Amino acid sequence: MKRSQAFWKTRKEVPADEASKNAALLVRGGYVRKEMAGVYTLLPLGRLVMNRLVAIVRDEMEKIGGEEVSMTTLQTPELWNKTNRFDDKVVDNWFKTKLASGAELGLALTHEEPMTDMMREYVSSYRDLPRFVFQFQTKFRNELRAKSGLIRGREFLMKDLYSFTRTQEEHDAFYERAAAAYMNVFARVGLKDRTYRTYASGGIFSKDSDEFQVVCDAGEDKVYVNEEKGVAINDEMMNDETLARFNVTRDELTTTTCVEGGNIFSLGTRFSEPLELFYKDEAGERHPVIMGSYGIGMSRLMGIIVECLSDEKGIVWPTEVAPFAANLVLVGRTSEARAKAEALYERLVADGVDVLFDDREGVSAGERFADAELLGMPTMIVVGDKGLEEETLEVKDRATGEASRLTYDELFSKISRTW
Amino acid sequence: MKRSQAFWKTRKEVPADEASKNAALLVRGGYVRKEMAGVYTLLPLGRLVMNRLVAIVRDEMEKIGGEEVSMTTLQTPELWNKTNRFDDKVVDNWFKTKLASGAELGLALTHEEPMTDMMREYVSSYRDLPRFVFQFQTKFRNELRAKSGLIRGREFLMKDLYSFTRTQEEHDAFYERAAAAYMNVFARVGLKDRTYRTYASGGIFSKDSDEFQVVCDAGEDKVYVNEEKGVAINDEMMNDETLARFNVTRDELTTTTCVEGGNIFSLGTRFSEPLELFYKDEAGERHPVIMGSYGIGMSRLMGIIVECLSDEKGIVWPTEVAPFAANLVLVGRTSEARAKAEALYERLVADGVDVLFDDREGVSAGERFADAELLGMPTMIVVGDKGLEEETLEVKDRATGEASRLTYDELFSKISRTW
Repeated sequence: MKRSQAFWKTRKEVPADEASKNAALLVRGGYVRKEMAGVYTLLPLGRLVMNRLVAIVRDEMEKIGGEEVSMTTLQTPELWNKTNRFDDKVVDNWFKTKLASGAELGLALTHEEPMTDMMREYVSSYRDLPRFVFQFQTKFRNELRAKSGLIRGREFLMKDLYSFTRTQEEHDAFYERAAAAYMNVFARVGLKDRTYRTYASGGIFSKDSDEFQVVCDAGEDKVYVNEEKGVAINDEMMNDETLARFNVTRDELTTTTCVEGGNIFSLGTRFSEPLELFYKDEAGERHPVIMGSYGIGMSRLMGIIVECLSDEKGIVWPTEVAPFAANLVLVGRTSEARAKAEALYERLVADGVDVLFDDREGVSAGERFADAELLGMPTMIVVGDKGLEEETLEVKDRATGEASRLTYDELFSKISRTW
Repeated sequence: MKRSQAFWKTRKEVPADEASKNAALLVRGGYVRKEMAGVYTLLPLGRLVMNRLVAIVRDEMEKIGGEEVSMTTLQTPELWNKTNRFDDKVVDNWFKTKLASGAELGLALTHEEPMTDMMREYVSSYRDLPRFVFQFQTKFRNELRAKSGLIRGREFLMKDLYSFTRTQEEHDAFYERAAAAYMNVFARVGLKDRTYRTYASGGIFSKDSDEFQVVCDAGEDKVYVNEEKGVAINDEMMNDETLARFNVTRDELTTTTCVEGGNIFSLGTRFSEPLELFYKDEAGERHPVIMGSYGIGMSRLMGIIVECLSDEKGIVWPTEVAPFAANLVLVGRTSEARAKAEALYERLVADGVDVLFDDREGVSAGERFADAELLGMPTMIVVGDKGLEEETLEVKDRATGEASRLTYDELFSKISRTW
């Protein structure tokens, strides 16, 4: 992508209305645009990041047998009344609307009810199970406050997967596979070393659940961790029973501040019974389906990556997530330098490398460098006036700041992405 | 995809609540699920079709310089009051909702206002123009009736592109490029021979506009056509002025029934003036930006293809749109036949061919054939008990019904898709 032809621009000033680091950087970098608190448009670069995140999560969900659908925003109260979740006194963050006929509707804040209802059409026998269905769908949550940028949105993209199994054992086995897939996701998006599978409350769904907590100063959760024993416990579940369960003492745990990156729940028959999702076993006996739900807020994930991995100069995208593998920065002022940069851009594109080319006219070298640091592509390639005759390129690593001179082949092997 | 492992199923009976052919076939085929009138979930096959449609339209929009974003559903009245379009008496199909604070919001039914407002941030000089921005975004329209299946939805996916140009001439040139791109889209989705660029009313936007009308018995529009002169006129614009404009007489025109597949509008300064999107020319003089908007209802397009191209047995997908290039149907009852079908499936998948494999247990040959006709993949590959030793395969073309025996290489070259 050539910046001279792009409509979006970066901003020098920090937006006055953004308290969070993630939104401030994403808005400054021209990744997103704030429509209102907790509601962001994805600009071209933001969309590319989201595409990469979606591709990673989709890949991991398909590997554990997930089938993808796309459900709807508009929700009829009928279904949600069966689980008593349409009432604003029970669930307090609905957005509600009305059909022209006057009938009340809700905007989906999650999809357990319609998913369970849908599966009634397709599940009758033990032969129809197990099944795993997921989607990437916009959710709406009427939060009173939304000051955390992309980390807590009123309108945001979410991946939600639902599992439908015959027995608790079958559920438990899938639940562990899902947990492993989640850890893969966090590793692939660059958060491996700071993500803990954390024992947490099940809220209204169940006794307990697992959260994927990412160490982050801006987080709202307190998590007790013992790296050696592989134990992490959410503050809300810190009690003698939990300590005994994990065979750990309070003294062996260190407190960290985290932000929740995803969560998985065992739902048991909480939805299948009221919504009448039953199957017949081999003996013809009827049982409620055992369910689980597994969520990752995709917009939130983008916010967390920026919140955790950025530095004082700007965003530092992990390789697999970056919208472009490299940022080609023309700092030379001669027509030879421009011609060389143009030729290099064409060659990289022809070789299938995603590269952002800062070819704007009338912009100083300093501004270009600052923008490249702000935008955070893993590799910066600098084309100046000097050294044009050489066969090597000046390359700088965004994360480490290390500069080196590479041949084209060395550069290519550094920045071409297999994913 | 193996049907034995898929959660969705086909249905024999026509849904009682679906008056339209497109929804009846798509629901029976397990492509979509109705949540309420005009609101459909995309099941895995439906999602694959939509992915292909989106890829085609995206390709054509990028070829004319479009940059992709993803705007939001939630809309603040502030912007829409500037163009007087938030008032229900002016625009009568809003879905409205409220923030927890009590402030009223709308669910986007189109995006002229937020797009224009967004561009204020990025356009100040003639150097910032022209720009073309598009998105695939869910729109919400509170239709009183929604009986046409996917052709008229209350919640549906739409591609909308907006053009921002300096002069009327620059606008007109882009408008023609967009019209050509639209004709490419309709050709690629199999509707080439039945789509007319049609002179139509501009509604509240402008004096006139162009619609892309698809000949279809279920359509609601009357279009006057002269193939030879390349003229098509919407009934609403049938008057002496229009006839003179196209140098055609009433007698030279044939009446056809059509459904609107897309439309493009010249907006002039209708949005840029009230929303204050101005640019400075080379002399420093301020002008309002000249705009256009260009829409294709993606869900509607899927409905139109089914409505137009299906036959009495089911759907007939055009090659570029089909969720799978081929449907492998196991009709043999022997274990040899199953093994051969399995091996063929593995080979096709390894060779990169999208193939749906009907490998279900306990289903008759008749049911499998009926399902393959209903689902409408372009090619059916039949594996029976006979002829297993032969080096050729029995292949049937869904559109023509022609059966033939092909070698693997012949089959591969028939069904591998370049797109």
